[in-house]
Amino acid sequence: MRNFEFYNPVRIFFGKGEIAKLSGIVPVDARILLTYGGGSIRKNGIYDQVMAALKGFNIIGFGGIEANPHYETLMKAVSVVKEHNIDFLLAVGGGSVLDGTKFIAAAALWEGTNPWEILSRKNEVSVEKALPLGTVLTLPATGSEMNGNSVVTRWETKEKIAFASDFVMPVFSILDPEVVFSLPQIQVANGIVDAFVHVMEQYLTYPVNSPVQDRFAESLLITLVSEGPKVLSCRTDYQAAANFMWAATMALNGLIGVGVPQDWASHMIGHELTAFHGIDHGQTLGIVLPGIMKLKRENKKEKILQYGERVWKITGGTADERIDVIIQKTVEFFESVGIKTRLSDYGVGRDIIPKVVDRFVKRGIVAIGERGDLTTADIAKVLELQL
Amino acid sequence: MRNFEFYNPVRIFFGKGEIAKLSGIVPVDARILLTYGGGSIRKNGIYDQVMAALKGFNIIGFGGIEANPHYETLMKAVSVVKEHNIDFLLAVGGGSVLDGTKFIAAAALWEGTNPWEILSRKNEVSVEKALPLGTVLTLPATGSEMNGNSVVTRWETKEKIAFASDFVMPVFSILDPEVVFSLPQIQVANGIVDAFVHVMEQYLTYPVNSPVQDRFAESLLITLVSEGPKVLSCRTDYQAAANFMWAATMALNGLIGVGVPQDWASHMIGHELTAFHGIDHGQTLGIVLPGIMKLKRENKKEKILQYGERVWKITGGTADERIDVIIQKTVEFFESVGIKTRLSDYGVGRDIIPKVVDRFVKRGIVAIGERGDLTTADIAKVLELQL
Repeated sequence: MRNFEFYNPVRIFFGKGEIAKLSGIVPVDARILLTYGGGSIRKNGIYDQVMAALKGFNIIGFGGIEANPHYETLMKAVSVVKEHNIDFLLAVGGGSVLDGTKFIAAAALWEGTNPWEILSRKNEVSVEKALPLGTVLTLPATGSEMNGNSVVTRWETKEKIAFASDFVMPVFSILDPEVVFSLPQIQVANGIVDAFVHVMEQYLTYPVNSPVQDRFAESLLITLVSEGPKVLSCRTDYQAAANFMWAATMALNGLIGVGVPQDWASHMIGHELTAFHGIDHGQTLGIVLPGIMKLKRENKKEKILQYGERVWKITGGTADERIDVIIQKTVEFFESVGIKTRLSDYGVGRDIIPKVVDRFVKRGIVAIGERGDLTTADIAKVLELQL
Repeated sequence: MRNFEFYNPVRIFFGKGEIAKLSGIVPVDARILLTYGGGSIRKNGIYDQVMAALKGFNIIGFGGIEANPHYETLMKAVSVVKEHNIDFLLAVGGGSVLDGTKFIAAAALWEGTNPWEILSRKNEVSVEKALPLGTVLTLPATGSEMNGNSVVTRWETKEKIAFASDFVMPVFSILDPEVVFSLPQIQVANGIVDAFVHVMEQYLTYPVNSPVQDRFAESLLITLVSEGPKVLSCRTDYQAAANFMWAATMALNGLIGVGVPQDWASHMIGHELTAFHGIDHGQTLGIVLPGIMKLKRENKKEKILQYGERVWKITGGTADERIDVIIQKTVEFFESVGIKTRLSDYGVGRDIIPKVVDRFVKRGIVAIGERGDLTTADIAKVLELQL
């Protein structure tokens, strides 16, 4: 195990009915901006639950935060924050609303030239303050409810960029599994694959003698494999929804990634597929991860075999044979929950490859992955394998 | 899974050499009380590392906090805090020093009649503020470094009582696995069993459909079983020490216990054995847990079988036969690390039984355990089984 720092002060309220606790946890005298997405919270009753809990509170609404939240939209929210002296943000939505709200929180107090710097110059500048924010999660998937990560898209230039700061960690997050009951099939499927690949990015690298982290990661993978399909086949199975939701949160709250190498190549490549073609985030991960497993099967050999044995009970045959089966099992799992794993499944052809590679080249990125050896040529190969 | 709240803002610095970071994380202008135990930190070099890191800081030392920290000793520290306007506590030690320092932190700002109330009237009054504290852990075992729990003993009356408060959670804890290198065998053994039983108290109850919590708990048990003996046989195996240390912290930071029933009968009964006979905390758990498993084998049947299968790979035979083997395996594990599991091993006879039972009766406690059905008569039976 390597040295690490771990800090996660997000207060979690988990379970049905917990939204009613909002009145006790949002500061009473706050001027609140309630951020949300396309309006599904008005249909599924969550908006009403939130407003009932916060009756008498000083709330302004800001809806319309889209999937892969746009910088342009979020900057409009920043104007509202400033105009109304907002001092607390309440994000009610999925990962996009939460990520977007984190950006609003940081941008509202940004003292640099332009808040775009938070993303474009993240290696040079850092967020030193942000408005406090709380969240009511409506879609288990991204883990944004219990971390300080955010991904924002600049629509104008089709750039999708992440930033991270302790200052944008939610003060609290409410996780009511009943929100899952009204989710469309594709959102559940994307959530399962998103959470699954979050675990893999922190797990499927190389061994560093970290049994707690490894077994925790495998615990989450096994839970997603067992509970995900239950949620898909019976949306009102509360216990399955609860287990799926908690697994998705634990997948990216920092815990399983402490003291171990991390990959994140699937995410980096996947972001470009979303930026160019609008493919859902979960779908892009379903495409890219199998390609990386195929290309880097030697690099990741020991962890692929461990993953296969402990998650899929695959123990027979030579190492090479097992790896083939393990990759196939992973692909089949994604496909079984409804996530296609080929670019052609999304109407995308070979011409995407140079465009994605070019993005990395232009940013001066020579190689990615846990060993820093997945080159831009390898990125092309990964996509080639998934045509 | 049940509804739950989870909050753990302790910042962890993990790994060799991390003690040197103290200068960057203790407030520069603080008036610090450095609390420690019997002086082992002066022999093993940790005191020197701490003082070197905090050169130029305003520090007063308070040593002599004993195992099962005494209320009487801690109140002397509270006087020192008040006399010197101490505003930050730095605990350097094992669970006893950390627990004791948490009590000092709360008692120093206690506005009630008498700080003993924090313990004796914990169901009526609550800690609303405390001095900030940081810790440098020197003994993996209790998990005190990442929670708000504290157990204090009143020597005068031989009472050992726990309290818990978010306000006494450490601001930071430094976990350097190299502290394990100089630990005596018995302290490592106690630590292994203590951490193991912490997990069992939150796991070996009854199923509530909580695969993440169950598998996380099993991850820690498996890690303790594999890494504990390595630490005992080679004290300078850094990776084994690191894995043991992280497992012990994760065993009682609240995470594996969210949304599931909890037992804690082993601890409650064990505390009395320590209070009356000074048996080490880890040893008392090694005595009591097997007794509870034997007596409550029907109550805990499903989880005992799951534990046996996933931790010890025991799958053959009838349920009853398997349970026998599983209990035996658990006892053998404790004995193998050097923790005896019979009262007679510690020179304690049958006469302890009415004394322990009387303690529960006098406190008005009718029954304990995850189902609230381990009666005072059962407590007698548990001890009878472990004579």
